[in-house]
Amino acid sequence: MSRAGGDGMRPELEFWFEFASTYSYPAAMRVEGLCAAADVRLRWRPFLLGPIFVAQGWNDSPFNIYPAKGRYMWRDLERICVRERLPLRRPSQFPRNGLLAARVVCAAGDAAWLPAFVRAVYQANFADDRDIATPAVLADVLMRLGVTAEPLLAAAQSTEVKQLLRAQTEEAIRRGVFGAPAFTVGEELFWGNDRLTDAVAWASAPAERLG
Amino acid sequence: MSRAGGDGMRPELEFWFEFASTYSYPAAMRVEGLCAAADVRLRWRPFLLGPIFVAQGWNDSPFNIYPAKGRYMWRDLERICVRERLPLRRPSQFPRNGLLAARVVCAAGDAAWLPAFVRAVYQANFADDRDIATPAVLADVLMRLGVTAEPLLAAAQSTEVKQLLRAQTEEAIRRGVFGAPAFTVGEELFWGNDRLTDAVAWASAPAERLG
Repeated sequence: MSRAGGDGMRPELEFWFEFASTYSYPAAMRVEGLCAAADVRLRWRPFLLGPIFVAQGWNDSPFNIYPAKGRYMWRDLERICVRERLPLRRPSQFPRNGLLAARVVCAAGDAAWLPAFVRAVYQANFADDRDIATPAVLADVLMRLGVTAEPLLAAAQSTEVKQLLRAQTEEAIRRGVFGAPAFTVGEELFWGNDRLTDAVAWASAPAERLG
Repeated sequence: MSRAGGDGMRPELEFWFEFASTYSYPAAMRVEGLCAAADVRLRWRPFLLGPIFVAQGWNDSPFNIYPAKGRYMWRDLERICVRERLPLRRPSQFPRNGLLAARVVCAAGDAAWLPAFVRAVYQANFADDRDIATPAVLADVLMRLGVTAEPLLAAAQSTEVKQLLRAQTEEAIRRGVFGAPAFTVGEELFWGNDRLTDAVAWASAPAERLG
């Protein structure tokens, strides 16, 4: 396996995201453009934070468990969204359950509409305050992308897709992911929206990497 | 009180740091230069993470309690130190107790050697693997700065200085600080070495702030 972790000629960046994760929102909105500009292949890797948090003894988002951290996060996210010119409306429910949306991504394979779907789900959650856990909201998101929702939502509930997402979450844990968003370039792990550009640079400029 | 939180003409940035904190190291090494370049006054604000962590139910650094987070942090810190051309040797003991060093800072008032002392203590801990909890190490650090150590180490153990550090930690909590390093500009809080330049920019360019 090459250092870049890809099987093709171009380096690959894997983007590990969870639809409930606040800081994954600005990362998801920018990752495709940044990778394209740097000629880096992008692999969308949805996973679930729930099992990771439970393993750490948390039954809720740490932003809810630790109020000072949560208050700070919302303000920090607001500053980031102003800078990135992204709409932000604090969701009336946090965290929302991203399970079904993550399964839809798994069911989508490498469909051309996948990046747009990911962004639209984040916007539904963090800009439009819609409950992304409900099939009706996801169906509406898919419809606006010109995708027939029913077969996808059905596939998302198949044993195969459920297992795929479970395996992906296990792989995330095995590769050291402990929060979202995360980026991997081969074995190199980057955590947080703040590391997005570092991760892309790492993938695109092997010569400048650490030894 | 002005938005910038300073009592003078120039905006003020308060730098909240804990000598045991890994990410405070690169922040401490850069904060004075960045503030000077932006014409921002800098106030050094040592505090203790211990009481904050205990209040969150942790009796150790979260980097020790959550091993995946800890492994990542050491690698991430390595990348940061390479980029900033800072020496880094992973301390044989982590976290080290920064209590005495923080008290020396409180005892120092606004002595001219204070910034150099802060940097030297971080280097002792994270570049030279010395035990900054011991008076002998701090005495050596002070001596190399041309400061007579004994009266300072004695003052650091005075009731007045102990109370000063305690009050500063309480103020940090009251102002929303939950980790180190942190930066405040008036009521605006920034957390983490990653936010150092944002905090300096916030202090120096009120016109570009959020409304």
